[in-house]
Formats: sequence, C-alpha cells, structure tokens
Amino acid sequence: MLYVILVYDIDETRVAKVLKICRKYLTWVQRSVFEGEITEGNLELLLNELRKTVRDKDNIMIYRTSTKKNFKVEVIGESMKDDFIL
Amino acid sequence: MLYVILVYDIDETRVAKVLKICRKYLTWVQRSVFEGEITEGNLELLLNELRKTVRDKDNIMIYRTSTKKNFKVEVIGESMKDDFIL
Repeated sequence: MLYVILVYDIDETRVAKVLKICRKYLTWVQRSVFEGEITEGNLELLLNELRKTVRDKDNIMIYRTSTKKNFKVEVIGESMKDDFIL
Repeated sequence: MLYVILVYDIDETRVAKVLKICRKYLTWVQRSVFEGEITEGNLELLLNELRKTVRDKDNIMIYRTSTKKNFKVEVIGESMKDDFIL
C-alpha cells in the first residue's frame, strides 16, 4: 500500500473529468488536491486514466510515499467543506 | 532541515501576495504548488506571514517531511515553464 498526494492544474474544459477520475481512487481535500492510500495496481490504473485525459498545458503532480506517517499536514484557513462546488 | 510541499487555494485578490511570500522561501513548481527544503525557523516565519494574509475561504495545505527521500514525484503533462504567468 502507498500513500499519495495528487495536485492538478487542468484546463477548465477538462477539470470536471479529471476530478471524476480522481474521486474513484482518492479523497478530495482541496480545490485541486487529492490524497489517500492506494495500491500500486490502482495507482497505475489511475495514472493511465489521467494520461489519456491530460492535454496541452495541463499538469498533474503525484507525490507518492510508503506511509502517511512520513508527512505531517498543517492547514491554514478553512478546510474544504463537503458541499464544495468546483 | 525539513522538506515541504505547500498547496494553496486562494482568492484572486490575495493570490499574488501569497505567491510573493512563498517565493521567498520555496520553489514554485505548479500554479498553486511550492516545494523545497526549509529550516524549522524559516517555516515558522513563512507560516506566520501566510496566516496574516489568509482570509475567508482561502486554504493552504502544508505537507512537511524530514527529507525529500521520503517520497517520489511523478509529473503527468507539461511541467511549469519559467515564464509561467499567474
């Protein structure tokens, strides 16, 4: 099992699709940030789906680590509400 | 020394200021993402400056880890050019 932080900068025309893909595998924690535990296999599936979707200046950064314990997270300001609308 | 990944979701009226603050301490790697090595002392200075700037629904997530070796980064799509304009 891995722990992943995924951050994307996607053109408006594709962001809803990327969001939908990411939501199948990870937890939405900020407008363009997903986190979560994931198997190597599922991470590969996620990356393949994203590679088919990304175009032009889109950019997705995936930080992978062996366990969430490798990171401490601090939030400044309001954390995302469930009713967050894109 | 620490390694930090900072991701922000900031209102348009404040994003230039947050960008300016972050650039003093970290490297700009994607539209709303900064990374870099930083001392505990400088991280505290950075966080204090950001806390004074953040309002309303702004949100900044700071992932800190002891070393960059704790994780691997993969980029899908185009990585940010130096001439990137906000």
